[in-house]
Amino acid sequence: MTLKVYLSGEIHTDWRARIIEGARGLDVEFSGPVTDHAASDDCGAAILGEESDPYWRDHKGAMINAIRTRKGIRDADVVVVRFGEKYRQWNAAFDAGCAAALGKSLIVLHPEEHQHALKEVDAAALAVAREPEQVVQILTYVLTGRLPGRD
Amino acid sequence: MTLKVYLSGEIHTDWRARIIEGARGLDVEFSGPVTDHAASDDCGAAILGEESDPYWRDHKGAMINAIRTRKGIRDADVVVVRFGEKYRQWNAAFDAGCAAALGKSLIVLHPEEHQHALKEVDAAALAVAREPEQVVQILTYVLTGRLPGRD
Amino acid sequence: MTLKVYLSGEIHTDWRARIIEGARGLDVEFSGPVTDHAASDDCGAAILGEESDPYWRDHKGAMINAIRTRKGIRDADVVVVRFGEKYRQWNAAFDAGCAAALGKSLIVLHPEEHQHALKEVDAAALAVAREPEQVVQILTYVLTGRLPGRD
Amino acid sequence: MTLKVYLSGEIHTDWRARIIEGARGLDVEFSGPVTDHAASDDCGAAILGEESDPYWRDHKGAMINAIRTRKGIRDADVVVVRFGEKYRQWNAAFDAGCAAALGKSLIVLHPEEHQHALKEVDAAALAVAREPEQVVQILTYVLTGRLPGRD
Amino acid sequence: MTLKVYLSGEIHTDWRARIIEGARGLDVEFSGPVTDHAASDDCGAAILGEESDPYWRDHKGAMINAIRTRKGIRDADVVVVRFGEKYRQWNAAFDAGCAAALGKSLIVLHPEEHQHALKEVDAAALAVAREPEQVVQILTYVLTGRLPGRD
Amino acid sequence: MTLKVYLSGEIHTDWRARIIEGARGLDVEFSGPVTDHAASDDCGAAILGEESDPYWRDHKGAMINAIRTRKGIRDADVVVVRFGEKYRQWNAAFDAGCAAALGKSLIVLHPEEHQHALKEVDAAALAVAREPEQVVQILTYVLTGRLPGRD
Amino acid sequence: MTLKVYLSGEIHTDWRARIIEGARGLDVEFSGPVTDHAASDDCGAAILGEESDPYWRDHKGAMINAIRTRKGIRDADVVVVRFGEKYRQWNAAFDAGCAAALGKSLIVLHPEEHQHALKEVDAAALAVAREPEQVVQILTYVLTGRLPGRD
Amino acid sequence: MTLKVYLSGEIHTDWRARIIEGARGLDVEFSGPVTDHAASDDCGAAILGEESDPYWRDHKGAMINAIRTRKGIRDADVVVVRFGEKYRQWNAAFDAGCAAALGKSLIVLHPEEHQHALKEVDAAALAVAREPEQVVQILTYVLTGRLPGRD
Repeated sequence: MTLKVYLSGEIHTDWRARIIEGARGLDVEFSGPVTDHAASDDCGAAILGEESDPYWRDHKGAMINAIRTRKGIRDADVVVVRFGEKYRQWNAAFDAGCAAALGKSLIVLHPEEHQHALKEVDAAALAVAREPEQVVQILTYVLTGRLPGRD
Repeated sequence: MTLKVYLSGEIHTDWRARIIEGARGLDVEFSGPVTDHAASDDCGAAILGEESDPYWRDHKGAMINAIRTRKGIRDADVVVVRFGEKYRQWNAAFDAGCAAALGKSLIVLHPEEHQHALKEVDAAALAVAREPEQVVQILTYVLTGRLPGRD
Repeated sequence: MTLKVYLSGEIHTDWRARIIEGARGLDVEFSGPVTDHAASDDCGAAILGEESDPYWRDHKGAMINAIRTRKGIRDADVVVVRFGEKYRQWNAAFDAGCAAALGKSLIVLHPEEHQHALKEVDAAALAVAREPEQVVQILTYVLTGRLPGRD
Repeated sequence: MTLKVYLSGEIHTDWRARIIEGARGLDVEFSGPVTDHAASDDCGAAILGEESDPYWRDHKGAMINAIRTRKGIRDADVVVVRFGEKYRQWNAAFDAGCAAALGKSLIVLHPEEHQHALKEVDAAALAVAREPEQVVQILTYVLTGRLPGRD
Repeated sequence: MTLKVYLSGEIHTDWRARIIEGARGLDVEFSGPVTDHAASDDCGAAILGEESDPYWRDHKGAMINAIRTRKGIRDADVVVVRFGEKYRQWNAAFDAGCAAALGKSLIVLHPEEHQHALKEVDAAALAVAREPEQVVQILTYVLTGRLPGRD
Repeated sequence: MTLKVYLSGEIHTDWRARIIEGARGLDVEFSGPVTDHAASDDCGAAILGEESDPYWRDHKGAMINAIRTRKGIRDADVVVVRFGEKYRQWNAAFDAGCAAALGKSLIVLHPEEHQHALKEVDAAALAVAREPEQVVQILTYVLTGRLPGRD
Repeated sequence: MTLKVYLSGEIHTDWRARIIEGARGLDVEFSGPVTDHAASDDCGAAILGEESDPYWRDHKGAMINAIRTRKGIRDADVVVVRFGEKYRQWNAAFDAGCAAALGKSLIVLHPEEHQHALKEVDAAALAVAREPEQVVQILTYVLTGRLPGRD
Repeated sequence: MTLKVYLSGEIHTDWRARIIEGARGLDVEFSGPVTDHAASDDCGAAILGEESDPYWRDHKGAMINAIRTRKGIRDADVVVVRFGEKYRQWNAAFDAGCAAALGKSLIVLHPEEHQHALKEVDAAALAVAREPEQVVQILTYVLTGRLPGRD
């Protein structure tokens, strides 16, 4: 059993690397958005031509990014969405909504302070974690039945 | 042709009333979440029993609210999502994600200042508006072919 | 908004009547299985002919009952499944599984003593209640936003 | 043709091992739940933190187990559900309901004494067997056309 | 609960009339193919122009008939397929296959002599009857819980 | 049986009116795009604001029109697509592709001269007609079994 | 591109072997029912126990065969259904109906004499052929673009 | 992550070769229609027999081509549709409609002069490009995050 896991959301810390590193040896295929912030913002204009209006510039970029995002989420068994401490992160919540509507197993990762504001998102999740290492433990358990600190 | 329209998101201004009022006479059925903030927060505990842990209190409430939200979004032809000026509004973005994944026609309503932060959500929409009256004009046009200021 | 509610499970107490009575005045359409135990057991043999082997006798009856059950669950927005104090009630759990797989909003109703044994079923539910009156309160809240004891 | 087979239900006897062993050499991929009872009960608390209320403790565990169960059942061509002689086994019936609603080929395995109580579940199945070896014979026949005792 | 019932198959006896007459007073909506044999054969040529090749003449007619058949089967809750004593009736078996693949509740009606030849079709059905009156009894039971000869 | 029919394509002749008029008395609900060419082109700019770039002006309009088109096609049982003698009419072919992919019954209406160029579209259709009156005859036959010139 | 092709229907001639042999070298995966007639009839009784009533004996066998048939048809891109000169072959027409309802590309293979009786089945097909070699030519063309007698 | 890309539309220039060549080294699987114009027109008659009526000759060919087209589009993650400078190209727009209705990521490639006529098709796309090299850049970015002219 290969588990396909899409890692959505916050791109400013190393949480994806910690999960991928921690899951080494498990039968998991990870995917996720382009995490190079500048490339992600510029892709539409760089490939399809500049726009004078920033709305349409963003629009062209967001739609190209959607090619990757849609593919990743639709193919996934598990979607992990991380909300960080800063920014509005509406695209993270948007991805969580997509994942829920498509019947994906949703894992949400956020600091405790966001608990009330994220209650609708959490209510659609099968697990709500604080640290990337907990996600690794979940993936380990789901694939092998092993729990941390037990043999 | 009856158009079913779900009005999601911000609950602190009168935007829903302005749309419903403006659409009077059109063949539209509106639905939306419970907009009584206190009831929405308390419904789980009030009906199913109090919880000492605020996380589970919120969880029980959010899940009961999901019964209404799911029904409304799934039955809708058009989902209008309004992002206001305050708060994180992750549930609005979550609803937009659900609507997009279910293939609903999505209309997003937000002030200009949110344009960059909402670019992924806007990219999934068929219309991005600033004012509730524009939503009324869209519904009028979609149902009757009439544009504002023309006969 | 009309809510379609299927009432599955235990047929030996008056819980269905209490919900239907309590929901009087709400925009709800209820459905459920045939609750005449003898008719439900005999329908296959009575209509399609007796069987010497009790397995096939049960089989013919269960399949005719499935015509009604499938229709009720598939058309429902909300499936309420009640587990009573006696019997194995595997058909109740089977209906809950169907409802969950079809993305229905699931409400489970059971005495506290079954909590551990029903944990997988409860985990798929949007509400877990003890009394039929709580289901009435949920339906009231979902349709009108009103909570018990508030105006 | 690779047949994906999910083995659901009773975890106290060696029936899964007997099927997997018997099917050696056939083009079958087996999956199933975590069968370590203690790990299965504890996974939520062990990974995501203890809960004082046993209901929420069970809830967290059941939801993590659902990540594996959902994946296994959705990917399966055939779902085998075994009901043993003891316990209520509502999760087995719940899995059978999921499998039926998703259109999976369902094989039910149970002792004769449960025949009447399981009639709704059996009515949704393509085969009802008593012994794991019969499941092996079914898988052999489905994949190779060979019947027991014939060449 | 309104039950939508599509009556497919044999068009040379009065079985449809007997079911519709017998179900008078029940909340059932019946549909079925055009049963005027000549019109059914000629519709393509009569409306879209004659064809010199009988294959294409039949083709044009069969495709126009499919507009009605598809609509009826897709909208139905229950599909009743009757196999008579004569002719090959491949379109009846074709409709049964469509109904099964779409998850409709299938009732098959045929004389005993066809039992072995129809075993694959019967195996996909929830009821196999001999007489139209049994179909009426099934519909009566499914909608009201009443069995023949009981009050 | 109410048949929902979407009338897509050419907007410069009176073919829609001829079908709707001819179908008077039949149980048909018609829908279609906004056929006021100027309104259809201008709707985006008129409601959501002018654009300096004609591409984005068209884009905004086309997306608002899609709200109506999607609703009409998805709700339809039958999609009639008319290709006229002039213009490229790519939106007509696009609608036909949508209809085919959604499993709608497709009727194509075009002059003989387009036969080779439209062969892929025609191959997805259940009827290919030359005149609107033939569509009326098809709808009449599908709903009533009556053919032109017969009683 | 691997094409998955299910070969349904008549089991008394060598048509499957001729197609499989002819398609050697093409990227095709073939599947089909168990073609050992005796095994196919006996499988239910041989594995799950004899039945005194021939109806239930057939029923058990047909349901086990359905495990293989469902898997093959659902996984297929193309379903080829062959109607031979003898027998009623209702299971062939049933498979064709399943394939059509699931949106599979259907190829029908039958002698000219069945043309009128099979017109509804043919109308759902993308190709109607007389000889297995034509099916090989279709598969060759679909996968490579090569036509017989051309380079 | 392997991206499956279907290349639909214009067959008279080398745009497919330029994309496939440019994407060398990326994890992409390309598919597309048969681009040998004569073979594509003749396939029906060559395999299934000549027709005297050119309509049916085209029909048989178009349906065989649909076996390949359906498979390619349904399996694709991304559908690229190219509109050239000549011909009506209704099959290109038809494929775009199919792709949109199936939720595929659509990329449209056309000269600027077609902008207004293709506005409905463009409105369903995630990218609208002028040159095949832009499609290569999109695929490169989607799979690797690299933009042209950046490291």
